[in-house]
Amino acid sequence: MTTIAINPPKSKWPELLERPAFDTESLDGVVGRILSEVRLAGDEAVLAYSKQFSGFAPQSLWVTPEEIRESGSLLPGDLKQAISLAKKNIEKFHRAQVRPVHKVVTTEGVTCWRKNLPVERVGLYIPGGSAPLFSTLLMLAIPARIAGCEEIVVATPAQKDGSVHPAILYAAQLLGVDRIYKSGGAQAIGALAYGTPSLAKVQKIFGPGNQYVTCAKKLVNREGVAIDMLAGPSELAVFADESCIPEFVAADLLSQAEHGADSQVVLVATKRKIIDEVIKQIHIQLPALERKNIVEESFLHRRLIVLHQEKQAFEFLNAYAPEHLIIASAEAARLSGYVRNAGSVFLGNLSPESAGDYASGTNHSLPTGGTALTYSGVSVDSFVKKVTFQQLTRKGIKHIGPAVMAMAEAEGLGAHRNAVGIRLKKLKK
Amino acid sequence: MTTIAINPPKSKWPELLERPAFDTESLDGVVGRILSEVRLAGDEAVLAYSKQFSGFAPQSLWVTPEEIRESGSLLPGDLKQAISLAKKNIEKFHRAQVRPVHKVVTTEGVTCWRKNLPVERVGLYIPGGSAPLFSTLLMLAIPARIAGCEEIVVATPAQKDGSVHPAILYAAQLLGVDRIYKSGGAQAIGALAYGTPSLAKVQKIFGPGNQYVTCAKKLVNREGVAIDMLAGPSELAVFADESCIPEFVAADLLSQAEHGADSQVVLVATKRKIIDEVIKQIHIQLPALERKNIVEESFLHRRLIVLHQEKQAFEFLNAYAPEHLIIASAEAARLSGYVRNAGSVFLGNLSPESAGDYASGTNHSLPTGGTALTYSGVSVDSFVKKVTFQQLTRKGIKHIGPAVMAMAEAEGLGAHRNAVGIRLKKLKK
Repeated sequence: MTTIAINPPKSKWPELLERPAFDTESLDGVVGRILSEVRLAGDEAVLAYSKQFSGFAPQSLWVTPEEIRESGSLLPGDLKQAISLAKKNIEKFHRAQVRPVHKVVTTEGVTCWRKNLPVERVGLYIPGGSAPLFSTLLMLAIPARIAGCEEIVVATPAQKDGSVHPAILYAAQLLGVDRIYKSGGAQAIGALAYGTPSLAKVQKIFGPGNQYVTCAKKLVNREGVAIDMLAGPSELAVFADESCIPEFVAADLLSQAEHGADSQVVLVATKRKIIDEVIKQIHIQLPALERKNIVEESFLHRRLIVLHQEKQAFEFLNAYAPEHLIIASAEAARLSGYVRNAGSVFLGNLSPESAGDYASGTNHSLPTGGTALTYSGVSVDSFVKKVTFQQLTRKGIKHIGPAVMAMAEAEGLGAHRNAVGIRLKKLKK
Repeated sequence: MTTIAINPPKSKWPELLERPAFDTESLDGVVGRILSEVRLAGDEAVLAYSKQFSGFAPQSLWVTPEEIRESGSLLPGDLKQAISLAKKNIEKFHRAQVRPVHKVVTTEGVTCWRKNLPVERVGLYIPGGSAPLFSTLLMLAIPARIAGCEEIVVATPAQKDGSVHPAILYAAQLLGVDRIYKSGGAQAIGALAYGTPSLAKVQKIFGPGNQYVTCAKKLVNREGVAIDMLAGPSELAVFADESCIPEFVAADLLSQAEHGADSQVVLVATKRKIIDEVIKQIHIQLPALERKNIVEESFLHRRLIVLHQEKQAFEFLNAYAPEHLIIASAEAARLSGYVRNAGSVFLGNLSPESAGDYASGTNHSLPTGGTALTYSGVSVDSFVKKVTFQQLTRKGIKHIGPAVMAMAEAEGLGAHRNAVGIRLKKLKK
């Protein structure tokens, strides 16, 4: 389906590093109108848009306590166990991100520290269109809980029968989240951003979604509502050397490609024959896949690249800055030292991206579209502000006061100088 | 100059919490044109705009090594010592933000960790119009260095004689920053964002500036360039109870107000007489200030509020979410427990905001305009990505594999399930 680039010279890299076009402007008009309407008419507008876009609207916009309670009885036991295991691992990894307050005495009498304070009200958007993404609820609600957010509101579209999928409700119940607003699309983002008669507006909105959702997040962010990130199409890059297992690499590329026709997979191998073997395995595995058509569409813009030198291979991968990076090699631990830009990295032949998508413990909300050059994935940090504190004693202000005065003077800020001078004068008395 | 609100009912709060209007749209057109021009014509356009806006352009856009070397001899000794002391404290506080990699075994055989990887190329904008803000260079370059950024480019406007103020050059030299681009305004942001023949584009842009600079940062951010934050007018809120020293509170309010006519100060006191005393002190101190006129303009939108209950006072302050918060009380340590939203907090009568602006060690690049509800100030975190890693052993994938498969199945992602299944099958053989 795709040509293989063999040791492409650097002049060819920009072309190979290009991502499928991701239009972020064309929906501005229609999404802007939806947002204005929701701002004006609240829940009424949300219901009207739900009806207009999906042909039905739920009786009530809020999930009832009974619906949440009953969700467990509607799920198979092995899925409930799986969700519990994933929850345990995600909690363990995210709890380790919390750090006790550490006071630093920068100069005798001058103590400074940072304290994590939770964002008070957060909104979590959970897509539910083609599949109920309860895993995303785990990935967002767990760090929100650990951060100590006071109010967590989930917005997720109802199914045709007006209910929310029990797997989402079950995950919500496990996490003690009981405010679930039955709405999807741009109208749900509007409700979270502006509030409605039944929903107090949130301060930060998290979660992936289709192009309408992403566009709505972009627009409300411009108006001052914080968001986690703008999620573009999902991506996977794989580095493979001769110690890889082509069968596994093929399975990983296929798993990424099934996300959507706009997903991109990149395979960088140190030998041509590795790519040939991976392609052979793809041909074996592809026919049995439920989402074969999506995979084939996505594969139209896959990249297959041979770079003989591992150092160059990682230079290319770092320039691409993939959301997910698998290092399919027996030497993954050593090779991981080359990584400069990526969202999440999977080391070795037994660490498929699927593991991180669900249950290893890392977060699956990750920077796409090359934003891994500067952005991190979601973590407990995403749900807190790190507020700095400082306290000076008499000794403290005597020690640093003169320096502050000299610097304020040099920056032409006399009242800044004076705020210290007046204190030093008083202390001398 | 301003009325005092005594125990205002909550219905009056929204009005009291309002900030001076900060127009972020009206400059879009003119700034957008400057950016396009810089994108097209690079350094030439930068020079042309410098000439157009300030009446002159420097001979060369780059500071020479000689200029940097000579800067020390142009500064008084006490200022050099002051800068060194500030550097030491800022370094000490920011170094403590770096955390060694901590590997978490979430399930036997599943190891996950986060690693800080530096943003590779960063641009620091340092205003130099009314005053050379060398303190901002310290606040940005120190965490950039600690993070390990490979390239740090400073952009700052030249003075009338074509030189950069020696205090900025001296600070740059102390920090080992030798790429200093002599340009200010929106054109400087364009040069950093798009690159020019003499300047490789950066990945993230930091630093405060006038409305043109802020607008340019906003626009390039929309195009995908990361930025630290959009800095609005500076703010200070002071909580004062009967243990405050009105003379100091007055000095602090004046020091904030001298930043600019659009700066805002808010004083929340538990007694009316505290405010009266502070106003008396303001009248005593104000006449001697160099920037008296600016202070008076800023004071037109100051807020003076009495809230008898400390709990209510902090509820109000948290809703305001000030950039700077001084707790002017002998009980500051206890009261600081009320703080939910703020950029940086100063405890007690001997901790003026000036201390944090220059030398206590905390960062002075802080969220304004109420964004402290969700955003943190600049820290080492701002210069890194926290990349997650995971490695599974045979035991690891056996332990979590079935859960991953069950969850992938329930989300309708067969290829995700398969990526694990194919490995488990192989391991059984």
